[in-house]
Amino acid sequence: MSEYIAPVRDMQFVLKELAGLERLSQLPGCEEATPDLVDAVLEEAAKFAEGVLSPLNVPGDQEGARWHDKAVTMPKGFREAYQQFVENGWSALACEPEFGGQGLPKVVNAAVTEMWKSANHAFSLCPLLTTGAIEALVLAGSDELKATYLEKMVSGVWTGTMNLTEPNAGSDLAAVRSKAEPQADGSYKIFGQKIFITYGEHDLAENIVHLVLARTPTAPEGVKGISLFVVPKFMVNADGSLGARNDAWCVSIEHKLGIHASPTAVMAYGDHGGAIGYLVGEENRGLEYMFIMMNAARFGVGLEGIADGERAYQRAVTYAKDRIQGTDIGVRGGPKVAIINHPDVRRMLLSMKSQVEAARALAYVVGAAHDTAIHHPDPETRKQNQAFVDLMIPVVKGWSTEMGIEVASTGVQVHGGMGFIEETGAAQHLRDVRISAIYEGTTGIQANDLIGRKMAREGGATIKAVIALMKQLDGQLAEQSGGKNGEHFAAIRQRFAAGVAALEQAAEWIVANYGKDVRAVSVGAAPFLWLFGIVAGGWQMARAALVAQAKIDGGDADPFYPAKIVTARFFADHQLTRAQGLATTVVEGAAGALALDESMF
Amino acid sequence: MSEYIAPVRDMQFVLKELAGLERLSQLPGCEEATPDLVDAVLEEAAKFAEGVLSPLNVPGDQEGARWHDKAVTMPKGFREAYQQFVENGWSALACEPEFGGQGLPKVVNAAVTEMWKSANHAFSLCPLLTTGAIEALVLAGSDELKATYLEKMVSGVWTGTMNLTEPNAGSDLAAVRSKAEPQADGSYKIFGQKIFITYGEHDLAENIVHLVLARTPTAPEGVKGISLFVVPKFMVNADGSLGARNDAWCVSIEHKLGIHASPTAVMAYGDHGGAIGYLVGEENRGLEYMFIMMNAARFGVGLEGIADGERAYQRAVTYAKDRIQGTDIGVRGGPKVAIINHPDVRRMLLSMKSQVEAARALAYVVGAAHDTAIHHPDPETRKQNQAFVDLMIPVVKGWSTEMGIEVASTGVQVHGGMGFIEETGAAQHLRDVRISAIYEGTTGIQANDLIGRKMAREGGATIKAVIALMKQLDGQLAEQSGGKNGEHFAAIRQRFAAGVAALEQAAEWIVANYGKDVRAVSVGAAPFLWLFGIVAGGWQMARAALVAQAKIDGGDADPFYPAKIVTARFFADHQLTRAQGLATTVVEGAAGALALDESMF
Repeated sequence: MSEYIAPVRDMQFVLKELAGLERLSQLPGCEEATPDLVDAVLEEAAKFAEGVLSPLNVPGDQEGARWHDKAVTMPKGFREAYQQFVENGWSALACEPEFGGQGLPKVVNAAVTEMWKSANHAFSLCPLLTTGAIEALVLAGSDELKATYLEKMVSGVWTGTMNLTEPNAGSDLAAVRSKAEPQADGSYKIFGQKIFITYGEHDLAENIVHLVLARTPTAPEGVKGISLFVVPKFMVNADGSLGARNDAWCVSIEHKLGIHASPTAVMAYGDHGGAIGYLVGEENRGLEYMFIMMNAARFGVGLEGIADGERAYQRAVTYAKDRIQGTDIGVRGGPKVAIINHPDVRRMLLSMKSQVEAARALAYVVGAAHDTAIHHPDPETRKQNQAFVDLMIPVVKGWSTEMGIEVASTGVQVHGGMGFIEETGAAQHLRDVRISAIYEGTTGIQANDLIGRKMAREGGATIKAVIALMKQLDGQLAEQSGGKNGEHFAAIRQRFAAGVAALEQAAEWIVANYGKDVRAVSVGAAPFLWLFGIVAGGWQMARAALVAQAKIDGGDADPFYPAKIVTARFFADHQLTRAQGLATTVVEGAAGALALDESMF
Repeated sequence: MSEYIAPVRDMQFVLKELAGLERLSQLPGCEEATPDLVDAVLEEAAKFAEGVLSPLNVPGDQEGARWHDKAVTMPKGFREAYQQFVENGWSALACEPEFGGQGLPKVVNAAVTEMWKSANHAFSLCPLLTTGAIEALVLAGSDELKATYLEKMVSGVWTGTMNLTEPNAGSDLAAVRSKAEPQADGSYKIFGQKIFITYGEHDLAENIVHLVLARTPTAPEGVKGISLFVVPKFMVNADGSLGARNDAWCVSIEHKLGIHASPTAVMAYGDHGGAIGYLVGEENRGLEYMFIMMNAARFGVGLEGIADGERAYQRAVTYAKDRIQGTDIGVRGGPKVAIINHPDVRRMLLSMKSQVEAARALAYVVGAAHDTAIHHPDPETRKQNQAFVDLMIPVVKGWSTEMGIEVASTGVQVHGGMGFIEETGAAQHLRDVRISAIYEGTTGIQANDLIGRKMAREGGATIKAVIALMKQLDGQLAEQSGGKNGEHFAAIRQRFAAGVAALEQAAEWIVANYGKDVRAVSVGAAPFLWLFGIVAGGWQMARAALVAQAKIDGGDADPFYPAKIVTARFFADHQLTRAQGLATTVVEGAAGALALDESMF
């Protein structure tokens, strides 16, 4: 069985050559992120992911988190791993130095997070949710809340959760019914049931800090009447020590398709008199705070598609190199060969490799833009980068996760019959990554966010700018089409240009028609998201190929570079070729979907 | 939770209007298959599938088949269901009347088999494998073997298995190592281990008749030295009663991603002195017999993609009609609506519905051609139909199963977070159908069979004839483009014509280049199979839309007909649009896949 090896080489390439790490490290506040430090961080993170988290992945899946008596026991080894995670300071990597964090750029954190997720998707969710809760407090918490909670959460000694969903309030948070009753001392009593609460209960940390959406008695109906509260599992005394158990209990956990080691809790607040909670920020602005944080969480979930895809790819490659079956095609009576020699197996493996690399490049480039949006001294540059990040987050989340599902399924296929046997491990990646296209907003939610809030609302300004950037690559691709790898570059150029044209056609149609017929345009939302993901992924792969050729031309003999060009070529031939069909589906595909009477489904 | 409702209306439509049931029932040997009888069979089968098999599907998945002491206990209720299955005569439906079968056409059996598989994929595998074993005996068994085994197997009192795979002989059966030593009495002693043996052991029937591939001592190496043997679990006395236990033991069963109620056995033959076996047909011709049977088995597995897709679709529709979440898009503050009103949910549901209907239509048309190939009085017609069947079997198997995986995954997505919870039932369909693209030959194997044996070997003669047939539809589609549903027909016509052109381009390239560069052509094998599936599915949907319009024009007010036209339209806009991209991938996509050095994967 293959163990996870962090793809440090590709991560470094993307960080340095595509995401502009060196430029980033010159921004105020990012000075510590020198290439040397980043290399050291990646190396240490790889060791932890490979040596500590990865070996727990299969046993964690088999044992699962177990609920009994309102408590959850984590699978064997998870407690120790989490302690080590905290002691090594991994929890604080990207957090604000003000609260004990190391303040490394988000793009570096993205690479490290990808490693946690590849090595152990279920484990990685605990720090992911804690980070979300930290951001909510940093964003809107009072000084007192910050002083009480942040340091312990940043260090990882306490963990955090996000309590949004209720049985009748999933994608539609306007329907939240949990109540918050103000108390004389300024606190609130919280009542209500929350479901799908990731790491809502566990035995990894001393305390769990729940962030809970609820309504105050005077709150207006709908999304504008939702407030955000901190509800600790254990009350915190003035000296920071833990006090009484709060009325926040895990009444069951879910039996799920995957991420078995991640406890998905049903949380009951206030069944025994009321859970004590503290308002975060202002009343009725809870959803607004959530949405600001959501971008980070969605980006993190997008990394899961890449991470599980990478893990599935590595496992499939190992198997394909080991498994001897059949002779080379067209060679009768020849020697038996490893299945990696069979053209269809190569196609599957390259389909996995090229999509994972494209999605990684896109995600890290978006991560770096986020850092620029925060740290750049020029307000206009900050604004442009933030607009790019806002546009691309639903693409990173939606496309990477749907890609991850396809890649993990292909990984099962490479294994043949063995892929269906749980002990092989390939099926777990498919089971685990399946959730990533659902939580933190389904692909449909991402797609509607993309075409509505991120495109139509601003008349498509940002996407037009992105498309203009994409087009600028054509000259360099044309130049390389006459060179040593000219055949590859000519193909990349042709398919990428066709992809950009398809994207532009679909984007213009969406912007022009969103206000006129939102239902028709929305039928094409998800196909548009895939189209955008494919073309944006192809954009990054084309950039990567150009850098690789420059390295080769400069005399660098690292086989990584020719491999990158070939991988970009494959992506162009097998993914970018889908663009025009998707654009046609977006522009002309609504009639069939809307014409069918409900009774005829 | 939704229970399965057999889609009898669509099945009848396809059988009568697309597969030519009436013409079939006029063929010699098929006279009993009158439309009335077929309706009655479908109705009774629907009752059994809905009332007996479907309620066991979820409990069977949860309990699973359990192994202990070389025996397997089936989940609760499976024994009783199987007894009823046998008593009702379902086992004998499509078998030869000579051996007690009812001799119904294969296409009718296809519809009934689809029901078993939708209702309970795991259960359906027992009769599927028995049918395969029966066919092997009918094809090549001696009169004595036929007399001893067939009647009990046709009635279902005994079940059958197919023992091909060994740990080092999966897709490559040339590597089979099991041995068969001839005995003085004409029998053989069989030694070896077989894996992945579906229903290799269970407690549903009195006896299990294993068909086992093994080598005799004088056999040549490779595929030409493999013989086929009958190895019963219990020996059969001269009077037909059961005798001693044979040395054929189930030493374990697999822990799988899905089909938990279907025991996947590791079978040990001859560990205690030798398992007694009987040669089927001639020595060294075992693989040849297997390949003849394989067509039927592959067709049956293709139905699984349709069946699990149908089941996933029904569950998703039920949920989407029940689940209230959000307001109509673009309507702020409006009433909360069922999610089936959301455009993206409609898109997902129609994507499921249209693909399942297209694949069903294609499969049944191929099934009917198989009946014609057997029963038609004209030898030339028989030959043409057999060529069509041979060409289409890998498409039905490969495309329907890959489609089924995508549809079942979309079914999970429609449920949002609930889809990831096992109790919802949606995830089971994804877990179950995942195997269908692997067993009885992976999609890669199907694709290579398609482009090599089924196309290149005959210079593309049959596929060219099929493409010519497809093109003949254009006139009718053009005519309807001016009619009442003209907008729908114009879109169907345009996309179908583009799809056929893409298919033709890719097929011609494959036939022209297979002999020159089989590796490059093989990279495109699977994309070509998808392309063929999509265009052939679109062909049947276009035919269906034309029939529906004729019914409407004739005054039939059944809403089934306008729904069919809309569904065909959706398929055109969302599936046929993929054709040109796939053709480009086939024709130009090899370089990237073949250029990468093995060390760089």
